Amino acid sequence: MSDEPVKGAEASAYDAATGAMTERLTDDWSIVVRSAHRFERFRSPFQLVEVHDTASFGKLFRLDGHFMTSEKDEFFYHENLVHLAAVTHPQPERALIIGGGDGGSAEELLKHPSMKSVTLCEIDLAVVDVARKYLQNVHRGALDDPRLTLKIEDGFAFVRRATEQYDLIVLDLTDPGGPSTPLYTADFYRTCAARLNPVAAMTLHLASPVAHPARVREGLACLREVFPIVTPYLTSVPLYGGLWMMACASSTLDPKGLFAREVDRRISQRALPHLQYYNGDMHRAALALPNFVRALTA
Amino acid sequence: MSDEPVKGAEASAYDAATGAMTERLTDDWSIVVRSAHRFERFRSPFQLVEVHDTASFGKLFRLDGHFMTSEKDEFFYHENLVHLAAVTHPQPERALIIGGGDGGSAEELLKHPSMKSVTLCEIDLAVVDVARKYLQNVHRGALDDPRLTLKIEDGFAFVRRATEQYDLIVLDLTDPGGPSTPLYTADFYRTCAARLNPVAAMTLHLASPVAHPARVREGLACLREVFPIVTPYLTSVPLYGGLWMMACASSTLDPKGLFAREVDRRISQRALPHLQYYNGDMHRAALALPNFVRALTA
Repeated sequence: MSDEPVKGAEASAYDAATGAMTERLTDDWSIVVRSAHRFERFRSPFQLVEVHDTASFGKLFRLDGHFMTSEKDEFFYHENLVHLAAVTHPQPERALIIGGGDGGSAEELLKHPSMKSVTLCEIDLAVVDVARKYLQNVHRGALDDPRLTLKIEDGFAFVRRATEQYDLIVLDLTDPGGPSTPLYTADFYRTCAARLNPVAAMTLHLASPVAHPARVREGLACLREVFPIVTPYLTSVPLYGGLWMMACASSTLDPKGLFAREVDRRISQRALPHLQYYNGDMHRAALALPNFVRALTA
Repeated sequence: MSDEPVKGAEASAYDAATGAMTERLTDDWSIVVRSAHRFERFRSPFQLVEVHDTASFGKLFRLDGHFMTSEKDEFFYHENLVHLAAVTHPQPERALIIGGGDGGSAEELLKHPSMKSVTLCEIDLAVVDVARKYLQNVHRGALDDPRLTLKIEDGFAFVRRATEQYDLIVLDLTDPGGPSTPLYTADFYRTCAARLNPVAAMTLHLASPVAHPARVREGLACLREVFPIVTPYLTSVPLYGGLWMMACASSTLDPKGLFAREVDRRISQRALPHLQYYNGDMHRAALALPNFVRALTA
């Protein structure tokens, strides 16, 4: 890690004079959030790591100049990334997270009382370090849960040599472009599929169907090369500019198989705490696709 | 109308040097879209009117420095503002739009084959003029439909002296702050309610449940003073930063009464053309509320 000045395109995403942090959705469409205070801005061996304080989002975490998550909007992303698959699974016991060093996905997985072990494989120790220091309201202690095993290593390498089988694999990755690029391939998905139990699912986020339709289409095509059941679904993430596409991929599990009432029954039976977004109605709502998204994901 | 330079807070929302147009969701959270070309920027007697060309949104229309609509994302707003109520109505024949001078809501209403008359009451002729000139892809000719009657006058005054009864009233207004401020009151809603047929509904947009929770809460409280059935629902509008709350208010009609299959049956029976968003699943999905929105709208 070093605190050297950041140059080039990344630097333009943070204006030290005004505190403006810019996330580009397209060349001419951005989300801008103003930093009230810069807690951290340093280069890890893998990426530029930042933590800022903001009025609208609380503590806000960025990697390579991209918004990752924040105290106030993390639930939009993490609850949706995890629970559609985790609730569809009748009894998830072993889960693997690739990426997700902020601990937000681990927290959601560990809400399920059947969960015996969550392995979190994060390439960048710096992410876990800043999460421990600043993002308590994102991981809520999950990084120190006795059921959590932390592996600091490359996700692809880890999955390739793994021998364990999982009920859930959660790809909680940065967008393609940085260190996560090789993890957006059918090759990687195939390697993950080999690590899934017969009744199991992998979930991941794809992109904005409005700003990045090609990424959504290509992502789903890769998944469909590998998995017989690929279920695209939608959520809204304020820091990502609104609608965001996720997917659940499996050989056996389809979130569409659960009606709202059954989802609510499982939420209640498992006593899932602190759900700010997810409920039975929202499970079904996430699976409903506007006509333009149906066309994109067909 | 004049083309004099614009000063003060409004001016800061458009940077002529870079073309950056800023929409503030909160003091520290904004959407920025870059203008590739400025077609219009002038003061009407009521507000600052702008039309820009943009790569991501096509032609983009602003009032007083706020994004109103665009060629590419107008369907998120207009389809949702109109069809949940219009499809719930068994046979809408007479509709009133307050505001909506861009013609987008009129176009959606006129898709319903039972519709005999749509009255569009817009305070600002300049809005209709720029829509006719630039926003063909928003109104698609609805402004010249023989079933449309255009009134250029204050909406409150129009509704107060009106004697007609309507099946649908659509409040397609700018956010409170500008000329629309008196139209966000229980007083105005009561005046509208008096103009509704026994089987009828009024729809309107409220605000972002994430960025403006107080506005959502106050808006629903005003509606509930007047209408026995107030149904809040959610859509996502890219230009507005994501999740956006709308509501359907009525004495008799509740969009929750329609299952997805019945919505799809009506869409097909009425042969509603060019729906890019709305379908039976999305009707139900719009009515599903995340836990934090349930708490906000309870």
